Amino acid sequence: MKLTSPGRGGRPPRQDGAREQTRDALLRAGTEILTEHGFASTGIDMVLKRVGVPKGSFYYYFQSKEDFGAAVIDSYAAYFARKLDRSLLNEQMPPLERVVAFVEDAKLGMSRFEFRRGCLIGNLGQELGALNENYRLQLEGVFRDWQRRLATCLEAARSAGQLAPDADPAALAEFFWIGWEGAVLRAKLVRSAAPLDCFFNGFVAALPRTA
Amino acid sequence: MKLTSPGRGGRPPRQDGAREQTRDALLRAGTEILTEHGFASTGIDMVLKRVGVPKGSFYYYFQSKEDFGAAVIDSYAAYFARKLDRSLLNEQMPPLERVVAFVEDAKLGMSRFEFRRGCLIGNLGQELGALNENYRLQLEGVFRDWQRRLATCLEAARSAGQLAPDADPAALAEFFWIGWEGAVLRAKLVRSAAPLDCFFNGFVAALPRTA
Repeated sequence: MKLTSPGRGGRPPRQDGAREQTRDALLRAGTEILTEHGFASTGIDMVLKRVGVPKGSFYYYFQSKEDFGAAVIDSYAAYFARKLDRSLLNEQMPPLERVVAFVEDAKLGMSRFEFRRGCLIGNLGQELGALNENYRLQLEGVFRDWQRRLATCLEAARSAGQLAPDADPAALAEFFWIGWEGAVLRAKLVRSAAPLDCFFNGFVAALPRTA
Repeated sequence: MKLTSPGRGGRPPRQDGAREQTRDALLRAGTEILTEHGFASTGIDMVLKRVGVPKGSFYYYFQSKEDFGAAVIDSYAAYFARKLDRSLLNEQMPPLERVVAFVEDAKLGMSRFEFRRGCLIGNLGQELGALNENYRLQLEGVFRDWQRRLATCLEAARSAGQLAPDADPAALAEFFWIGWEGAVLRAKLVRSAAPLDCFFNGFVAALPRTA
């Protein structure tokens, strides 16, 4: 990330509420820009400009560019966990149909941005995983959290008889997220949902069913 | 890619053989550095320095930085196609075992660099796919080539009765490469071959077998 060192003379808003709002706006803009462009080619200036925050006040909100990156990852992880849970905890439908609902939701989400945005965690994992040990552990932690949420849903599918009794929800959830990130990458490249469907069809074919 | 514009006064070697050798050395170094660091954070200076080529002669070998990137992709694609074919065309073993042999070879290849290098095509696909239409089409073409090679091997598996008669080799090959790139990404993040095994186990579970 290009980060020219701004002076520290910015005048942040006085009230805590306004401060929180500005911080959130910076995180939202950071998420969007980092998802589309990656860390190295994103300048902090782009983020500040989009939010309309003067350059000088960046350090009022974040200690450093690393700190900003970590906060963007946390914020995206929390947003995505809520999105996942909306499908995976939806007791209106059987467990495996909830996974289908998540996939359809994700396809819609990617098509909304013409398949130009991928997954922030996958993107940064590739770019920063080898460079920065803190980011590496943080990003892997996010994948493990998403896997746990999916594994819980697959356990429910097993209990409901949608999966065979010897199905391994944790291993299946890991398989899903490993391949899904590849599918998101490829969907960006071909600018279509076809890779998401192709991977999900393969995932479903791999599920051990009751005989 | 940071590319400071070098002067054009470099003195390249006179003989065609030496010229070819230097060009190959630049492509090899470019492949290594780009695979590890990506485009944006790789400077052409790093490549020239590693090869010991003076800055001024870069444009003798490549018209532009885009041209260099495209040549690196072509060179990596050709290297990897040979690597794939060594396993997938090996008639000493049944077709599905050849796919296993490729996976084992790939695991060894990643462990040799402590899982710090991924797949150049996957990396650049993520980084450049949204930015540059020429690269996007070139990178997708490479995936399609790899898919064709795997599909041919899966057709042989179907003919040999290792797969069910209604198996779709092209769709299975696409499924493999979509998920495999995700597995390579994750292997980099956790610095272990476990995600490659996890994905491959899922892929094998998804293969339609003869009853």
